[in-house]
Amino acid sequence: MNKDFLAVPPIENKGLQKEVQEHLDRLTKPQGSLGRLEEFALRFCLCRGRRDAEIARMKIFTFAGDHGITEENITPYPSEVTYQMVMNMLRGGAAISVMCRKAGIDCVVVDMGVKGFFRETAGLVNKKIAEGTRSFRKEPAMTEEECIKAVEVGYDLGAGSTEDLLGIGEMGIGNTSSASALYSLMLGLDPEQTVGMGTGSSGPMLERKKQVIREALCLHKKAWDKSPMDALRRVGGFEIAGMTGMLFGATSHRIPVVVDGFVASAAALMAMRAQPEIRNYLFFAHASAEQYHGTFLQNHGLRPILDLGMRLGEGTGSVLAMQVLAQAMECYHRMATFEAAGVAEKV
Amino acid sequence: MNKDFLAVPPIENKGLQKEVQEHLDRLTKPQGSLGRLEEFALRFCLCRGRRDAEIARMKIFTFAGDHGITEENITPYPSEVTYQMVMNMLRGGAAISVMCRKAGIDCVVVDMGVKGFFRETAGLVNKKIAEGTRSFRKEPAMTEEECIKAVEVGYDLGAGSTEDLLGIGEMGIGNTSSASALYSLMLGLDPEQTVGMGTGSSGPMLERKKQVIREALCLHKKAWDKSPMDALRRVGGFEIAGMTGMLFGATSHRIPVVVDGFVASAAALMAMRAQPEIRNYLFFAHASAEQYHGTFLQNHGLRPILDLGMRLGEGTGSVLAMQVLAQAMECYHRMATFEAAGVAEKV
Repeated sequence: MNKDFLAVPPIENKGLQKEVQEHLDRLTKPQGSLGRLEEFALRFCLCRGRRDAEIARMKIFTFAGDHGITEENITPYPSEVTYQMVMNMLRGGAAISVMCRKAGIDCVVVDMGVKGFFRETAGLVNKKIAEGTRSFRKEPAMTEEECIKAVEVGYDLGAGSTEDLLGIGEMGIGNTSSASALYSLMLGLDPEQTVGMGTGSSGPMLERKKQVIREALCLHKKAWDKSPMDALRRVGGFEIAGMTGMLFGATSHRIPVVVDGFVASAAALMAMRAQPEIRNYLFFAHASAEQYHGTFLQNHGLRPILDLGMRLGEGTGSVLAMQVLAQAMECYHRMATFEAAGVAEKV
Repeated sequence: MNKDFLAVPPIENKGLQKEVQEHLDRLTKPQGSLGRLEEFALRFCLCRGRRDAEIARMKIFTFAGDHGITEENITPYPSEVTYQMVMNMLRGGAAISVMCRKAGIDCVVVDMGVKGFFRETAGLVNKKIAEGTRSFRKEPAMTEEECIKAVEVGYDLGAGSTEDLLGIGEMGIGNTSSASALYSLMLGLDPEQTVGMGTGSSGPMLERKKQVIREALCLHKKAWDKSPMDALRRVGGFEIAGMTGMLFGATSHRIPVVVDGFVASAAALMAMRAQPEIRNYLFFAHASAEQYHGTFLQNHGLRPILDLGMRLGEGTGSVLAMQVLAQAMECYHRMATFEAAGVAEKV
């Protein structure tokens, strides 16, 4: 690998922590009464390494890619929907487009490996590695070279960002299968626990999805070198590798990232396994309604910001969570202090 | 009473429900994948009685009032802080001011009964009934006339609103004591369950707070006529009565209301007890960290939108919840349908 993916600065800084906490305690409210908003403000400042860190600009990257595993008939939507939904995003009709516009968050789609070609368009970053992965039931989804390239693409986008806060999301028919396989492989869990309905697999299709992933795990388990990179290559996808890379790139440049739902959290698991410090830079947007996501967050002590039964992906959970984080920083910066407002303090 | 507080139109409308649900299901996302956002959009349309209901304008009313019970030394902040915090709100330095500005939500403070006089100012609605209530440990907090007047003030403000969605919040040193007393009286609960730290009572002060409320309940229990209005008059406050009135006025005009935290929910309990249909118009913003609030919501099947450990009041939880509701309606109106976007549907 060309980049030092693991060079992430620790956020711990006792002096800064004390300074930020003291400021929070001077604001006109009972101490601690903004609850988690105060925790978020503190951690955001620690990530940025500055007492005066602000959230002025936010951006969401929606990584898109297709999956060879869809040939196994494990999802109710055809693979073409990935392309169609990217077009929908570019035209502003997808949930992520609508919500980002409303929230004042920039958004772009990164074509990591969608089947079909897009014309150059505003809002699209063309980084296509191949037109979809191979079916990981039969062989590794990517070559080593492809996987490294996908991670590097994400790294460069993250490292080169000038925003104060990033969000990640994804689009890719078949990608909950990849995510489930990653959770199962990495954490040694049976697909019964990690496989859910995705875009809407149910009944026999859901059972087939579990079976296909179980067979894939048998195929890869022995040859797997236990590293997150090799897991990504074997059962991941281009968009998941891209998100993992973005977490490396952003956090190595002290940019915190809001992680969307089930699939994005699989990328986060890969990144955190490679470099545990990354965890401190991540805000988990919401507990998705997708099977296992809530359990994953809970078992790993990753308390999500929201829990609204969403399971759409794209980065839609990230939008709502970023609005909460922006409000936390707004309070931190714009609220009056007891002294300035002439408000009596606690006796 | 002059107004018919209880004339609230039922929201049930099977035809409209079907129409809204069918539209939600045509949007470019797996069915139901926006989770509670879809529930919110549906219920908002039912409240408004229109398929094309929008959230174009939102407003938060922060009701303020002082409390005679503060003379019992049950809160660490002096009563003057109510006045000072209202001034802070009017100058834009309070959490509610900062957050509303950021979210594009109008906000006003309603002086229902703050000690001291305010000059006429933008953002302040002067409806002062008296300079604080009487200590409900010794006598009813309000006269019958005062209580009706306070409810009517809120009713008129709610009924006269031209916004699509309202939020309520409050400011009043001592008002968690009133709210706890209301919960205890109305639901037959010992103060041990319903009394919490408020702005920061702890140790002996918290024990005194419980004892004072216990004594007050003994005083009022027998004479209480079991109605929410009489409970409000005996142990409530001007701002709580104002919020209750706003719920009557807004919902009777089909305007849904976002209810903030512990104190605002006590007003909601009064309104829902008086007229059960009101419940369908309310969105409970968040589970407050204040003792009993989470339990109250859970026991009454009132699932809050957020749970962020906040316990500040003012309407701060309402702001965040209103941003979520606005996004739900944004998706409902602006997302493309499968047909319009040329996206293949589930096979």
